[in-house]
Amino acid sequence: KTDFKIAVLAGDGIGPEVVNESIKILDAIAEAFHYKFEFKQALVGAEAIFQTGNPLPDETLAICKESDAVLFGAIGDPSFDNNPDAKVRPEQGLLKLRKELGLFANIRPLKTYSSLIEKSPLKKEIIDGTDIQIFRELVSGIYFGEKFTDEEAGYAYDICKYNRDEITPIVHMAFQEAQKRRKKLTLIDKANVLDTSRLWRKVCKEIAAEYPDVELDFMFVDNAAMQLILNPKQFDVIVTENMFGDIISDEASVIGGSIGLLPSASIGNDNAMFEPIHGSYPQAKGKGIANPIASILSTAMMLDYLKLDHAAEKLRESVEHAIENKYVTIDLNAEQPYSTSEVGSFIVDYI
Amino acid sequence: KTDFKIAVLAGDGIGPEVVNESIKILDAIAEAFHYKFEFKQALVGAEAIFQTGNPLPDETLAICKESDAVLFGAIGDPSFDNNPDAKVRPEQGLLKLRKELGLFANIRPLKTYSSLIEKSPLKKEIIDGTDIQIFRELVSGIYFGEKFTDEEAGYAYDICKYNRDEITPIVHMAFQEAQKRRKKLTLIDKANVLDTSRLWRKVCKEIAAEYPDVELDFMFVDNAAMQLILNPKQFDVIVTENMFGDIISDEASVIGGSIGLLPSASIGNDNAMFEPIHGSYPQAKGKGIANPIASILSTAMMLDYLKLDHAAEKLRESVEHAIENKYVTIDLNAEQPYSTSEVGSFIVDYI
Ligand SMILES: CC(C)[C@H](C(=O)O)[C@@H](O)C(=O)O
Ligand SMILES: CC(C)[C@H](C(=O)O)[C@@H](O)C(=O)O
Repeated sequence: KTDFKIAVLAGDGIGPEVVNESIKILDAIAEAFHYKFEFKQALVGAEAIFQTGNPLPDETLAICKESDAVLFGAIGDPSFDNNPDAKVRPEQGLLKLRKELGLFANIRPLKTYSSLIEKSPLKKEIIDGTDIQIFRELVSGIYFGEKFTDEEAGYAYDICKYNRDEITPIVHMAFQEAQKRRKKLTLIDKANVLDTSRLWRKVCKEIAAEYPDVELDFMFVDNAAMQLILNPKQFDVIVTENMFGDIISDEASVIGGSIGLLPSASIGNDNAMFEPIHGSYPQAKGKGIANPIASILSTAMMLDYLKLDHAAEKLRESVEHAIENKYVTIDLNAEQPYSTSEVGSFIVDYI
Repeated sequence: KTDFKIAVLAGDGIGPEVVNESIKILDAIAEAFHYKFEFKQALVGAEAIFQTGNPLPDETLAICKESDAVLFGAIGDPSFDNNPDAKVRPEQGLLKLRKELGLFANIRPLKTYSSLIEKSPLKKEIIDGTDIQIFRELVSGIYFGEKFTDEEAGYAYDICKYNRDEITPIVHMAFQEAQKRRKKLTLIDKANVLDTSRLWRKVCKEIAAEYPDVELDFMFVDNAAMQLILNPKQFDVIVTENMFGDIISDEASVIGGSIGLLPSASIGNDNAMFEPIHGSYPQAKGKGIANPIASILSTAMMLDYLKLDHAAEKLRESVEHAIENKYVTIDLNAEQPYSTSEVGSFIVDYI
């Protein structure tokens, strides 16, 4: 297959700017490797609320479902964050999209770049050589369990629930990834307190029998929050439930010192979405200073997913070339910063 | 009041060793300041399970309830951690104790010591001057909500619930603490996803009206997990729900680089308990290498609580004297380490 339909959900804030660079690059890749990418733009997030009242219009969902992959920018807008009474919020669009597309595994690779290592808040000897792959369950748990608020009585609850079928597929994925790497898988949970965590532990142990070459260990989430900072190199592949994954993966994103570089993939059985982990960063919108590399590396993960291995390799090589030559945005090079589109064009030229 | 009943729950692992130093020091304080401390030892944790089958025997609970304060060591034993089928666990004793004593606020002060700053995994310029006070809600939320597992169906849930009355007292406490400090309070929550978090936000905003001199702000827990490492100095007082508090406070404990120094207080309306934040550290048990300072500083928090301000001040001064003179255990001074009891005796002598 050489023809691909790509849904483009640029979203809010700096989303459109960074996604734009990914499109430029995909065009260059199409030319270099004789592929065809057909892009379909669609609304999501605050932008979609402003234009249609709905953070995830039906049309957007339909476009995503018909596509081979979704390129996602970012969502979020301060006008909603500061308004507790807003009934419709950009985040709802993202959560619904994950659920509707069945994107059960959010994958975040984390590694340090030696040329950027001094950017980290952590000491060099702690982080040098860190290479972690986090698998976060994305469509169940407390995010999607029943919620309830009784305003009068001043009472609220959120239910965290999991069943075996929600745990099994991502655990297999994580084991398979560990097999390709350093053969260590860590389940992060709170099995000393939560029933759902004990179920995760049980399912992981059963599945472990199918991957005898992978060492499985368990870590309580509070301890993991310490260990990620004290000694991140101890981790290879991490798997965890939705809420712990949200916290732990954002925490881990500080290790490399440059959140503007970190990509993610959200994978389901029939759909997949690729998204930089930085948010909409509204303060930077329209200034041409947003780092496009997280979006570009998310695009490389998309090429992996589409099995365009050579193109993915070429793209990663180009990005490393840009980073090594300090052809990067102001967050990584304050002395001689390049703009969002200059960085994108540099990578295009290299390809 | 000059006579106090202190329940001593030494617990497991290094618990007894470190608590022993606290008792030595309280004896010295009693002599110096003409107070009387009457100690009652009681069983808790794995030790209590081994001896009575119950991680929190009724007698222990009764002793705690009759006391002016509880000195707690640590609980936990590897024989339980590695046995998923154990029906009775040390942690249950601790959770029940918190609930029965109504210890709704777990308070953890975090600051850096300039003589130890190079021990931190974080860079000096990031952490120097950090001074944070974390208030974690301790007797509600997902820890104590209904739990359920259907083994057959392979299904489990945990309910996170809060009502106004469970949120209000700790929020007042946190505001009052902020008033005495830099007048900034940060609520950490996940209000973009959870109903319980929205209730926390609402209650905090209402209560804020009573503390107009304190600036209240809100931070999502995933962002907070990043910000604590990127820029810990931005925080003054933090308040948060039980599970987020467990994760965030352990994460924050790495900042100073020496978890062996960090104390905590768990406060209720009629009872209070003081406990080092390090765990039972079974590998170090009986070796005389455990750092007693976390337990000793927890004892200083107990003196605050008992309103023995001069004694508390003297004790903190003694601890700083020991740290400055590197009269500390091997975790902080590998070249010329002192034993657990040598450190305790040094502080006793200073008092
Ligand atoms: C925006 C928010 C709902 C979302 C989440 O919590 O999943 C975000 O933090 C993320 O990690 O993608
Ligand atoms: C032992 C465990 C149940 C406990 C908790 O999660 O509260 C511990 O981690 C703590 O923070 O005191």
